[in-house]
Amino acid sequence: MGTTLIVNPGSSSRKYALYRNGSLLLELRYEDTDTGFEVCTQLSGGQQACSSIEKDDFLEATAHVSEEVDKCLAKESVGRVDSVVIRVVAPGTYFQQHCEITQKYIQKLKEKESVSPLHIPIIIKEIEGIKKHFKTSNLWAASDSAFHKDMPRKAREYSINSDDAKTYDIFRFGFHGLSVSSVVRKIHPLIGIEPEKMVICHIGSGVSVTAVKEGKSVETTMGFSPTSGLPMGSRAGDLDAVALLELIRVKNLRPNDAEVYINTNGGLVGISGESDIRRLLDQRSQGNEEALNALDKFTYSIKKAIASSTVALGGLDVLVLTATASVRSSELRCLILKDLEYLGIHVNQTRNEMMVGRDGVISVRNSPVKVVVMRTDEMGEMNIVANELSQKVS
Amino acid sequence: MGTTLIVNPGSSSRKYALYRNGSLLLELRYEDTDTGFEVCTQLSGGQQACSSIEKDDFLEATAHVSEEVDKCLAKESVGRVDSVVIRVVAPGTYFQQHCEITQKYIQKLKEKESVSPLHIPIIIKEIEGIKKHFKTSNLWAASDSAFHKDMPRKAREYSINSDDAKTYDIFRFGFHGLSVSSVVRKIHPLIGIEPEKMVICHIGSGVSVTAVKEGKSVETTMGFSPTSGLPMGSRAGDLDAVALLELIRVKNLRPNDAEVYINTNGGLVGISGESDIRRLLDQRSQGNEEALNALDKFTYSIKKAIASSTVALGGLDVLVLTATASVRSSELRCLILKDLEYLGIHVNQTRNEMMVGRDGVISVRNSPVKVVVMRTDEMGEMNIVANELSQKVS
Repeated sequence: MGTTLIVNPGSSSRKYALYRNGSLLLELRYEDTDTGFEVCTQLSGGQQACSSIEKDDFLEATAHVSEEVDKCLAKESVGRVDSVVIRVVAPGTYFQQHCEITQKYIQKLKEKESVSPLHIPIIIKEIEGIKKHFKTSNLWAASDSAFHKDMPRKAREYSINSDDAKTYDIFRFGFHGLSVSSVVRKIHPLIGIEPEKMVICHIGSGVSVTAVKEGKSVETTMGFSPTSGLPMGSRAGDLDAVALLELIRVKNLRPNDAEVYINTNGGLVGISGESDIRRLLDQRSQGNEEALNALDKFTYSIKKAIASSTVALGGLDVLVLTATASVRSSELRCLILKDLEYLGIHVNQTRNEMMVGRDGVISVRNSPVKVVVMRTDEMGEMNIVANELSQKVS
Repeated sequence: MGTTLIVNPGSSSRKYALYRNGSLLLELRYEDTDTGFEVCTQLSGGQQACSSIEKDDFLEATAHVSEEVDKCLAKESVGRVDSVVIRVVAPGTYFQQHCEITQKYIQKLKEKESVSPLHIPIIIKEIEGIKKHFKTSNLWAASDSAFHKDMPRKAREYSINSDDAKTYDIFRFGFHGLSVSSVVRKIHPLIGIEPEKMVICHIGSGVSVTAVKEGKSVETTMGFSPTSGLPMGSRAGDLDAVALLELIRVKNLRPNDAEVYINTNGGLVGISGESDIRRLLDQRSQGNEEALNALDKFTYSIKKAIASSTVALGGLDVLVLTATASVRSSELRCLILKDLEYLGIHVNQTRNEMMVGRDGVISVRNSPVKVVVMRTDEMGEMNIVANELSQKVS
């Protein structure tokens, strides 16, 4: 399987992981936090060490990554990184595949910059850094939409003019595919069955709910862009297109401004001024009305998506909550799962409270729907993607 | 209760009804059909008579209505129309009330013309015609959103910047309120109970699904505009706002063009080129792939909305299908209600097939959810609204 560097660029964080023959050797995380920029480094089996960095070091992280990777590989007496795989979040049928990053691929990404001005430039910059510092490595794209590419037409298509949809490639691509795929891969070992009808809620800074039937995605809440679907930390989620047109008129926005607006000024931060769910939960427990309202909207939207997903499945066997916010907070899970008994969702409160930061079942023994909390593993999934692509090529 | 003229203007049809002390005396319907313009007249207890008219007569229908109303009142020896009530479909908190149409009201409507360029100019023109031809009558607005005005915050608010939402009045107003309200009023006499948890699907040329808890709207699929929510005859329903921004960019549309585009080029006609559900059902039965796909998308969206609505209700007791398309076609109902047994919806196929153009229950006797087909009565509801407003004033 060789040596693979995993690259996961986000708008406020950039994560890197180095795998050697399937084992994790090194993790690096660069973050733009409230208090400044920092990098956290963790060697396999070791403690995590964090330190402040300058903004330039955050922006030019790839050079630093390259040095750290070299140091780590020298210790292991390994010469080079065989593959680098980067997570790609981009709307487009072309981007619904895991593949080699060629000049054509980079060109196609550049053509989509205007559609996703907050995400694609970051990916392109990361690719350029990788090409400079890892000259001899294979370079792969791990698509965050590939998992959804075979959704049925009724889930994949908007009800707009079908010729325009084809000409301009306007479809419901879906995102969080690497996360959801990692859950699908790991559910059987955890609960001992391969669920037929499963709903997976990814609740991190992005939020989505995906219906998975016999291991395949059949419906998901994010559509054309990762801004759509449910309210998130700062993304608005679904908004009446005519309401957006009205905002464009009254605020005199250009299309790009409008996109930035709904990406950064919506969701929890738009409603309440605060995007951090832990802080909102604290404020809520202190009786803060706006925090209560924001979390009410947030969890209600997830509940509605869970109920709605059952139509694509014809029912529900297993409900999975994954990604940071839902793995970390039993209180948030409690708010999400409350009052869904009529759908067969019966939570064991003691199990729920005990399950923090690890994987397991939190429903009562005879609950018609098994409720599972599970850490997502996007990085591990990308390592698998890289290995599969390497094998195809060799 | 006096004499009331009900005015229901649409983009392709205009309906008028004359009530005298709660009884219907006369109905007039002006339609822009595939084969030209026509008017259909029906006197209480009489046959309907239809005839072709010129486009000008369609556009200036109010003058013709005034003559027909005068003739009818002369026969009944009634001097004048006491009240004229007009259905108003307009986004805005101000328009979520039934009220008198004053100069201020007309001014407020004009301010919203750009938000709803397909609907509001028609309403304003109708009001002007009424004021000219029914000079001595009281003039009332029956709001199509009033029924939804007390939805909980989590249903009424978008997850956008809350200050902007207030400043620019961007909320989920909901529509089809007169239709849904008429169903709520008539459900008890029909099924003998006042349902606690009811979902009402209005399926005409517009389509919406509303959750009604103890008689009050708590959630509905249409939001800021009547273009949003589910796919309709020619309206797109929900579309990722970023996808609309991309269409604006690639097709070089102005906001008004974009609005017309999603109002006229989406839904069934966008997907398949055909907006008439009867024709689509015919084509589908002949194996037409596009008709099958369009109806699949259409009915799937309604099913998802029914499932999603149960969250606002905490379950489901009664499901009502109303408005032309669902009252007329047992086949369409069958497609909508199929595979929802897991939600407690068990349809009696014989009853379903027998129920065409009239009201009744079509579920099996022990179905956990009672399924009801019911004709909507927007015109009757508007007559009630007019009477209530008249009583308030007098």
